[in-house]
Amino acid sequence: MQTISDTIKVEKVKTSKIDKVDFNNLAFGKVLADHMMVCDYKNGAWETPKIVPYQPITLDPSAKIFHYGQSVFEGMKAYKDADNKVWLFRPLENQKRINISCKRLAIPEIPEDYFMEGLKALLKVDHKWIPTAEGSSLYIRPFVFASGNGFHASPADEYKFIIACAPSGSYFAGKVKVLIEEKYSRSANGGVGFAKAGGNYAGQFYPTQLAVEKGYNQVIWTDDNTHEYIEEAGAMNIFIRINDTLLTSPTSDRILDGITRKSLIEIAKDENIKVEVRPITVKEVIEASKNGSLKEMFGAGTAAVISPISTFGHKDQDYDLPELENSYASILKKRITDIQYNKAEDKFGWRYQVSI
Amino acid sequence: MQTISDTIKVEKVKTSKIDKVDFNNLAFGKVLADHMMVCDYKNGAWETPKIVPYQPITLDPSAKIFHYGQSVFEGMKAYKDADNKVWLFRPLENQKRINISCKRLAIPEIPEDYFMEGLKALLKVDHKWIPTAEGSSLYIRPFVFASGNGFHASPADEYKFIIACAPSGSYFAGKVKVLIEEKYSRSANGGVGFAKAGGNYAGQFYPTQLAVEKGYNQVIWTDDNTHEYIEEAGAMNIFIRINDTLLTSPTSDRILDGITRKSLIEIAKDENIKVEVRPITVKEVIEASKNGSLKEMFGAGTAAVISPISTFGHKDQDYDLPELENSYASILKKRITDIQYNKAEDKFGWRYQVSI
Ligand SMILES: Cc1ncc(COP(=O)(O)O)c(C=O)c1O
Ligand SMILES: Cc1ncc(COP(=O)(O)O)c(C=O)c1O
Repeated sequence: MQTISDTIKVEKVKTSKIDKVDFNNLAFGKVLADHMMVCDYKNGAWETPKIVPYQPITLDPSAKIFHYGQSVFEGMKAYKDADNKVWLFRPLENQKRINISCKRLAIPEIPEDYFMEGLKALLKVDHKWIPTAEGSSLYIRPFVFASGNGFHASPADEYKFIIACAPSGSYFAGKVKVLIEEKYSRSANGGVGFAKAGGNYAGQFYPTQLAVEKGYNQVIWTDDNTHEYIEEAGAMNIFIRINDTLLTSPTSDRILDGITRKSLIEIAKDENIKVEVRPITVKEVIEASKNGSLKEMFGAGTAAVISPISTFGHKDQDYDLPELENSYASILKKRITDIQYNKAEDKFGWRYQVSI
Repeated sequence: MQTISDTIKVEKVKTSKIDKVDFNNLAFGKVLADHMMVCDYKNGAWETPKIVPYQPITLDPSAKIFHYGQSVFEGMKAYKDADNKVWLFRPLENQKRINISCKRLAIPEIPEDYFMEGLKALLKVDHKWIPTAEGSSLYIRPFVFASGNGFHASPADEYKFIIACAPSGSYFAGKVKVLIEEKYSRSANGGVGFAKAGGNYAGQFYPTQLAVEKGYNQVIWTDDNTHEYIEEAGAMNIFIRINDTLLTSPTSDRILDGITRKSLIEIAKDENIKVEVRPITVKEVIEASKNGSLKEMFGAGTAAVISPISTFGHKDQDYDLPELENSYASILKKRITDIQYNKAEDKFGWRYQVSI
């Protein structure tokens, strides 16, 4: 039987750009690999994915992406181990989630094998771009956007699904100072906050700029109604350790169901750490900080992995977190990255090998 | 003194497409005029606008518009009167509003004269595209999007501001059946609902599709917290007449400050119609429908002008509006379109002539 992977056409670059890249000094998502996967939705169906040289996209000015923000994306990483084997981390979760996002944004869902086989075909041609320096990886960006035309505010009739890759270093340099938001919001009840929709990110930039002007790196979003509940950060879910209990907010239609988040919950339980998934109030976090029971806060996401928070601000007041030996953040980070880079046993079955 | 209008370069098309267009059977926003205005933001500044043939846009796949939905737009119309004079309606309101939107989306604001002079230069070359058939006009779409590159979730360093024009007929054909939403939401407190941000529209498509499947044309959004208050429709503000009073919701950070809405409030007052700008509950509208005091509901916006609503649905129940002679909708529509098409005195000073 012929599968989709047999029909994916591959057009290779004539000359690779790889020699021009300094793999020991990589920023995040700035240098792009040689190829990309492209899959078009036309006449009511997704066409067969193809691998082509990374190249510009040409669109009509009335393409709906420019006007109505109809787009979704994913963020994944490919890792290379000491034997040059290539690994993904729970890629089927990304495959499922992009379709959850697509559905909410009225974008036709992508066949499961188009996503996975398109991605594998791309890694096959570009695996040399996976960096091996400590903490670096190939950041993978699948994205889908409305390429169909017209000013009528309605879903497009054509879409492009692209996967591009960028060898990347760390997302944040060092510890992170966050501001707990009390005015602006990221998402609404019944809105698109649970989807990786482009518009969710643009809406965060201005409040984040205001926070950066005050000396913070990131905003921690609270519910739009009362601003009393901790939700998540720009591109990370949030974990809070009070005494020896690890807390994280339940996901909802306002909060992204992060793959790092749910993996860390399982690893923490495996480490016999007590985990509570429940609404967290700003008030209890401030009280815990005041009475010394607040031990750690960290963000968790594919791009930033685990990002320890050194300080949080709320209503013009800063609260510092203690510096701990053997923090949960460091234990969990070692466990998850050891699985990702194939340095330890994978009892959960999360690693996914890509043959190159 | 040299003004910006002296420095706008104009590159005309070799052959116009205008003869191929059937101006008596225009859809909405499908046929594009010959030229467009383009203004680039680079190296920290907006460059001089230029007029070029309408043409495709080429972008890197990592351009932030594809990933983070950083885009805003406006909607305006140009009208031609019996003497072939060209008119805009309150264009400075659009100019101000696009910058309100830009600011919230962390897009650099556009100099006032770049917007107005760019638009006027475009209409000078494309005024022949303004249709004159009853109810038609040249729909004008100014839009701005992030053209700068990179996967880091932060504002772009380059933007494109474009104005394109589409000769258009009516937005809706006939009366409109709306569904008052009880689950999904358009915007959050502290969010971007007041801005004409692309992402606000994409988020409405799926709930609107669900409503369309149930036989409605449009959704009327309610507040995301209780779904008890009427907010606005997809691209229209909402007016409700109970007995002889015209009600409309106050604008907020969740609701667009529509130019048609605020113009109609003034015209209604001038007609000695009692207007109340106050929160409107779904409950009072249903009660008014039941006791016969609900006389009219209509949407108001640049694209749809005034769109009378024939039926509204709520929780699986439909409520029909009566058919009235001399409805407020018809009185107000005549007043506002007579001003727009230069058929009546403009006591408010809203008309703006463009020399061609
Ligand atoms: C809003 C938001 N929250 C959380 C996350 C973390 O999710 P994941 O762990 O799947 O990368 C991301 C990034 O993907 C995100 O964009
Ligand atoms: C969400 C929304 N509400 C209301 C309106 C009506 O605003 P205006 O009358 O300025 O066109 C529009 C369209 O512009 C809109 O997009």
